[in-house]
This record gives sequence, structure tokens and C-alpha cells, in this order.
Amino acid sequence: MEWKPNRHSHLTIHQQIVNWIKQRIQSGEWPIHTKLPTQRKLAEAMGVNRSTIVNAIEELVADGILSTRVGDGTYVSNNSWNVLIKDIHPDWEKHISSSIYEPNFQTIQLINEYEQRENIIRLGTGELSPDLLPTAVLQRSLQNVPLTARDIGYSEPKGSRQLRHALSRYATKRGIHATPDSIMIVSGALQALQLISLGLLEPGSTVFQEAPSYLNSVRPFQSAGMRIVSLDKENRDNRLPDQIISMKGKKQSLFYTVPTLHNPTGSIMSLDERRELLQICAYQQIPIIEDDVYHGLAFGKTPPSLKSLDSDGQVLYIGSMSKTLSPGLRIGWVIGPEPVIDRLADIKMQTDYGSSAFSQQIARHWLESGLYEEHIDQLREQLKRRADFVEEILQLRYNSIATWNKPAGGFYIWLRLHEPLVNKALFLKLLKQNVLINPGYIYDAKDFYHIRLSYAYASFEQLETGLNILYEAIAEGTS
Amino acid sequence: MEWKPNRHSHLTIHQQIVNWIKQRIQSGEWPIHTKLPTQRKLAEAMGVNRSTIVNAIEELVADGILSTRVGDGTYVSNNSWNVLIKDIHPDWEKHISSSIYEPNFQTIQLINEYEQRENIIRLGTGELSPDLLPTAVLQRSLQNVPLTARDIGYSEPKGSRQLRHALSRYATKRGIHATPDSIMIVSGALQALQLISLGLLEPGSTVFQEAPSYLNSVRPFQSAGMRIVSLDKENRDNRLPDQIISMKGKKQSLFYTVPTLHNPTGSIMSLDERRELLQICAYQQIPIIEDDVYHGLAFGKTPPSLKSLDSDGQVLYIGSMSKTLSPGLRIGWVIGPEPVIDRLADIKMQTDYGSSAFSQQIARHWLESGLYEEHIDQLREQLKRRADFVEEILQLRYNSIATWNKPAGGFYIWLRLHEPLVNKALFLKLLKQNVLINPGYIYDAKDFYHIRLSYAYASFEQLETGLNILYEAIAEGTS
Repeated sequence: MEWKPNRHSHLTIHQQIVNWIKQRIQSGEWPIHTKLPTQRKLAEAMGVNRSTIVNAIEELVADGILSTRVGDGTYVSNNSWNVLIKDIHPDWEKHISSSIYEPNFQTIQLINEYEQRENIIRLGTGELSPDLLPTAVLQRSLQNVPLTARDIGYSEPKGSRQLRHALSRYATKRGIHATPDSIMIVSGALQALQLISLGLLEPGSTVFQEAPSYLNSVRPFQSAGMRIVSLDKENRDNRLPDQIISMKGKKQSLFYTVPTLHNPTGSIMSLDERRELLQICAYQQIPIIEDDVYHGLAFGKTPPSLKSLDSDGQVLYIGSMSKTLSPGLRIGWVIGPEPVIDRLADIKMQTDYGSSAFSQQIARHWLESGLYEEHIDQLREQLKRRADFVEEILQLRYNSIATWNKPAGGFYIWLRLHEPLVNKALFLKLLKQNVLINPGYIYDAKDFYHIRLSYAYASFEQLETGLNILYEAIAEGTS
Repeated sequence: MEWKPNRHSHLTIHQQIVNWIKQRIQSGEWPIHTKLPTQRKLAEAMGVNRSTIVNAIEELVADGILSTRVGDGTYVSNNSWNVLIKDIHPDWEKHISSSIYEPNFQTIQLINEYEQRENIIRLGTGELSPDLLPTAVLQRSLQNVPLTARDIGYSEPKGSRQLRHALSRYATKRGIHATPDSIMIVSGALQALQLISLGLLEPGSTVFQEAPSYLNSVRPFQSAGMRIVSLDKENRDNRLPDQIISMKGKKQSLFYTVPTLHNPTGSIMSLDERRELLQICAYQQIPIIEDDVYHGLAFGKTPPSLKSLDSDGQVLYIGSMSKTLSPGLRIGWVIGPEPVIDRLADIKMQTDYGSSAFSQQIARHWLESGLYEEHIDQLREQLKRRADFVEEILQLRYNSIATWNKPAGGFYIWLRLHEPLVNKALFLKLLKQNVLINPGYIYDAKDFYHIRLSYAYASFEQLETGLNILYEAIAEGTS
């Protein structure tokens, strides 16, 4: 074995080793059942640390390409699925191996992994605390959920007609006038984005977003080969319209935005900004996706939704109950021009034959009975108490190291440190102390100033402990 | 306007007209708000029937490219989504415009459309009749469905751990020994196929199936650009192994099969055939997808599942409650090698963040309490009664025009006419009489002999009326 990784390659040493092992297997050099040289031998032969070998082998084991037998070393796995697995999602692989996204992606994987563990303090989680979920009321309400044989058969393509009627009425409170035919039910907002990416865009299309963006932490568009272009709203020298004009490619494009209680910043777009955005996009013929899943959680009044200001069918509106009632319900909705909704519904039917009829009937019951709005009213108060609690801690300790805006609702405070200390090292250091943060760089790869704090998940006690540990870790970095 | 469709083109007149109108719009010749010439004028100018124009315009209206105002003609639609919609799914479009699939596809669209109507006799529907759904028991059981705050939060990637435990125990009755970690929950079998096509195959992969096949009536693989190869099990001159070897391309391939109560034929693969298939595929390193959604509905004993005979992790097994408990539940599962399951679970999380927690808890409760098996025992008896009823009618009237096998369970009788009369004309003729059939050609484009009869959906009275109307329609065709 004479191969050594190339220290001048654009690929990391880790990636080169993984690729090299894959090549041995693909070429048939290491057929199924082959026992690999020991980790020590591989490390010596390649001139790398043993931990580098361990990491590479771990990745290949996770991918099912290698398997380990306790006390008996590492083998090439024994199943034909390997042949399939190894070539999956070339675009995705290419994407994650491009250097700028790598730490981003690894951090997200670590967050997903550590969120499952007990005893971890989750300071950034975009999810309601189990305490805030109305579990007992939900349980009791199940008795009153209307069920007919028709309801629990296969669904209409757009979902339960009664639920769409209820949503049509609910939307009017947001200033949106939509017939049930221009509403479709989806299994949460992420599925809406997934259907849009499958059904309305070809690879190479441009998706505009404002930086930082939640879209950088999920990948419905990226993994389908779309071009994501982040725009900088603050840039006075190169204003938004000019940025759009210069970045718009030859292919289709659309604009993704969370104008109300933005994720991750928590900001609310002003009425003027909304009008301007609609105007620019109408002029450029760029449809808009308005992600409005947090609006019910605003502590005060908010400007009207983009959709309610839209007279030309320019806006596709996404709502959801995941942030307000229960993520496990998997109920969201899309409101838009009927032909677009028809198309998305058709794609959904090809994908999963509709969302759970039981979830749909529960959502309908909660809307029709008033339980939903009653619950949101209470939830908003509880979130406000949590927001005040966190802000108090920040006021006490963080004034010398960071700035932030008073939260206007939702889950998040977008904490900005005075110094660019929010890097992967800080993330890992906190992880060792059982504190999980959502660093700004997962929403904007170049941002090392911000942390998305969430007051929605951790308990009051955990919030206090976590914020103290975070403060110490930052203070150490500063000194 | 001088353009006329070319009668010698490989495209239909309809397709040519649709394309021509699209081109006028794309080129900017007919900008937004343009009023089209009247249908009469267009028909005259192109030298075609007015109904041809009407059909073309209807398609473009359905796609949102044109819109009609009552009493005021047809216009180019007023929204920027057109720009997106027009280029969607080029592979799909190519697929449906290839002549052999067109009638197939149109028939499926008509079936989907007419299934929604009242007063239609559905002789082919692959769905339980509302009478057979345990609606009242389901409603009552909701009170006992266990719910914790953890259950109704975001799901683990593979789905509810308790449901996977329950399924692991349930699978042992099918001879399958699977840990909860090698099981994942999906929103029905179609989503399982969709995830496999997204997550394990690259475009151009080969999916083998036996003709006729359910896969021809849904399109998770076709629309993702996979090559579907139908094999002929009956061909004595060119046996299955030889067919596989000659058809296997350079890219990945897998074998899709419904060995137990096959859809649409209702047949059951013998133990010897199962062993042979496993052997051939193992030798060729072709993984197998075993679709086993009907097995609980067998009237007698069936051979063991392929998965239970599989010692090498060669088989990915799909189960579901859609055919046995409630389609609206949207609960299915996949059992397979753990790395493959991990990969599919990862793709599912990127797609919809998991299936409904409520549906999962209901499924778990029905499995753990024994309600599920109790229900299936009763359902099987009711289906048997329905099968006997339909067979009696066939024995009385159909012996001179058709042959069939006595159903061994499930929903279907695969009726074979003596003459190749099952074409689109027969389908449409029956539709006019409010009888909906599933013609054989939607499962095998070259088959004009078969009809998939389902005794699961229509009422006894409807079955009798429908089969009489069907008989008359066939008899007219024969004479």
C-alpha cells in the first residue's frame, strides 16, 4: 500500500481517505468480506493520525460500506445495497464536500444527533418545550374528533375539504381571502418547500433569500440542484432590486422569505419593506414564497401578510401548526393561485397519497371548536414569560459582550457578539459541557458573530444554567 | 395565422396544438392578458374539429397557462407562476407523450377523476369499501391511544420507537426477525417506493418487475427517470434469469415484486418460485423490494415471505395498514438492512420530518391491544363473502366470454376475456353508463384481454348491476 493523501488537494485529508477506501471497494480490489488492514497500519502507511483513520472508517460504517465486528476488525460489508448506496445523490455529496458548507453541514448533523440525548441543554432548538404542548387537552379532544368512513379513506388531492374550509375562514383573520380550492394541506412547511422544489422548479433555478436564512439549515432546494442566492438587505451601496437584477439567472427564480418573526433573526419586515418587495418581484416576475409559520406567536400587532397585499397571485403562502400546536401533527398548508395549488397537490399525491386523515380531522376540530386560538393565546403568554426571563439574564450578564433586539414574538433571540467568536470550536466546546447552541454560521456560512437563542424549548432552570455556561465560554474566548 | 398540425408527426394533433399555443406564449407573441382567437376560428384555421381545440385549451387551462372568463373567451393567464409551471418535470412530460403510455395515463387520470363522483359503480377500486372500514371502533379507540408530550413532538428519523417495537413483534408472525432499528415508518407503501427512488437509485437505473404490474399505474420510479423493465414469467423460451441477464444495464438495478396476492392478478408465488427468484437476484447482486401489503388478507395459508427466506439482507420489505385498516391513517413500514433503512430515514426527514405522530400512536395501539388482528380476521371473512358473491355472478354469466382464477384473498379477480376487447373504447363506453373499470392495459400497455375486478369497494347491489352492465358491453363488442 503506497498511497498517501495529498496535503495540497482541495479535498480534506478525511475526504481523500474515504474516497480512496471507496475506490478499493468499487474497483473490486477489496471484494465483499475483505478484512481491512488494522487502523494502526493504515495510519502508518498513509502518514496520518490514527484518529483520522478512525473517523474515515466510522463514516464508511455509517454508510453501510464497511462493518466492524467487535474485537475482530473492519470488513467490507456483506450486502448488495452497497452497490446502490455508494452513488446516491451525487449533487448532495458534491454540495457537502465543497469546503464552505462542510462545517455548516457537520454542525447540523451534530445538532440533530445531540438533540436526541438526555441531559443536554438545548439553547437553540426551534421547537416547543414538551411543557408547552397541550398534550392533555389534545388527548381529551380526541373523543370529539369527527370521523366518518369517508374521512379515513384515501384523501382528495388537496386534503380534507372540511379542513380547507376551516383554514379558509382562519386565513381571513390574516387578511387572506382564499377559497378552499386554492388551499392544500401538506405534512408541515418543509414538505411544502419540498413539493415546490419537485414540482415547480428545474435544477439550476435560482432561489433568492435574505441572509441569514433558515433555508441554509434545511436543504429542500439545495439537494434538488437549485442555486441559492443570499441577498443582503442592509447593503446601502447595492440595494435589493439591483442585487436581484444582477443575480437573476436565465432560468426560473423565486424569492423565499419569512417576513414575520424571521427565522433565525426574529425580525419583522415593515409594511413599506413588504410593499417594496412585492413591487420588485412583480416587476421581475419572480414569485414569492411567504413562510408564515410563526405569525400566531407575535407578542404585539404585526403588519399584514404579503399574501394579503398580493392582488396578482404573486405569493405562495405557507402556514403550519408545527410551531403552535404540535410538530407531531404534521399539518401545514399552502395558499396560492389555483393552478399552482393543483400542480403541487398532484405532486403530493404521487409522493405520499395525502397527509394523515386523523391529523387533518384533529386540526379541523381544533380550528372549528376554537380550541386552537384559545391555545395560541395561552401559548403566546407563556412564550412571553420565557422571553422576558431570558432577556433579564442577558441584561444582567451579556451587555458587555453582545447586543440583541427585544423579541417581538416567536421563539428566537438573535444574539450578536461583539467579536467573531461563534465558530465550530465554540460549538464543540459547549457540546462537551452538554450545552447545544445553534451558531449563526448554519444560517449564513460567513457569519461568526451570531447565535440563535431559543427560549421555547429548555426549562427555566436549563435556560439559566445554559446561558451561564455560554457566557463563560465566550468570556474565555475574549480574554 | 398559417400554422396547421402535421398529420404525419409522431406527436398527436392534440399535443401539437398544445405545444404551438405554449410556444406563442413563451416567445412573448401572446403576452399575459392576450385574448385568444375564438375556438371556431382556431379550428377553422388549423383544419381540425372544434372539440380538438376545446381539449387543447382545457389542458392549458388546467395547467394554469390559459384562463377562461365565462362568456368572454380565453386569455393568457395573469400570473408569473406560468413561467415556472410550463417547464416542470420534463422527463414526465416526455414519458406521457410517448405514444404507448398515453392512453394508459389518460385512463388513470379519468379513473382518479371519476372515483370522486357520486353514483359511479367502482368495479376496480383498490380500496376498502367505507362499510369495511372500522370507523366506529377507530373512533372509540382514540380515547385509549397513549399520548405523551414526547410522542407529539418531532419524531425520530425512523419513526416512533414504540410502534417499531410493536411492528418488530408483528413481523415475527410473518417469519421476519427484525430489530426496531432495521424498521422505519413511512406514510404508506407509495412513499416507501418514492424514498427508494429518491434515495437509492440514480436516474437511468433499471427496475425489474413482472408484467402486468401495479408499478405501471403509479410512477414513483418512472417520474424519477428510472428504466422499468417488465419480465415475462410465463415465457418458456426465455426464462427469467436469462431475461434479467440480457436486460440488466450498466447502472444499478433492483427487482420489484408483490409475491403474495399480486396486484393486479391476485396470484401467489410458490415457495419454489420464491427460492429461485432470491437465488437469481443474489447471483446477479440485484436487491429485491417485496411489496407485502395484501398478505394479511389471504383466505388460506401462504408461503413464507421473501424477507423471511433472505439471509443476506437482499430484500427490502414493505408493509402497510392502508389495505387492511384505513388508507387515511397513512401508515406503512419498511424492513431492511440497517444502513439502507438509515439512508431512507434520512431522506424521509429531509422530505417531511416524519409521519403523523397521531397516526403512529393509533397504529401502535391497534397492534399492541390486539384490535388490529381481531379486525383483520373479521375483514378477511367479509372479503371472502364478497369474493364468493362476485364469483357466483361470474359463474352464472361470464363462462362463455372469460376465464379467471378463484381468488385466494385480497381485493382482486384478474378477469381474462377470450377476445382482446378491453381497450379505451370499452372503458369510455362503461364510463358513460357510470361503471368504472380498471382495464388491464394500465398494468401492461400491450394487454387488451384483462380487467382487474375488485370486490372490495362497491356494494353487493352495485357489484351485481355493474357486472351485468359490463357483461352487456362486452357481449356487444363480441357480436
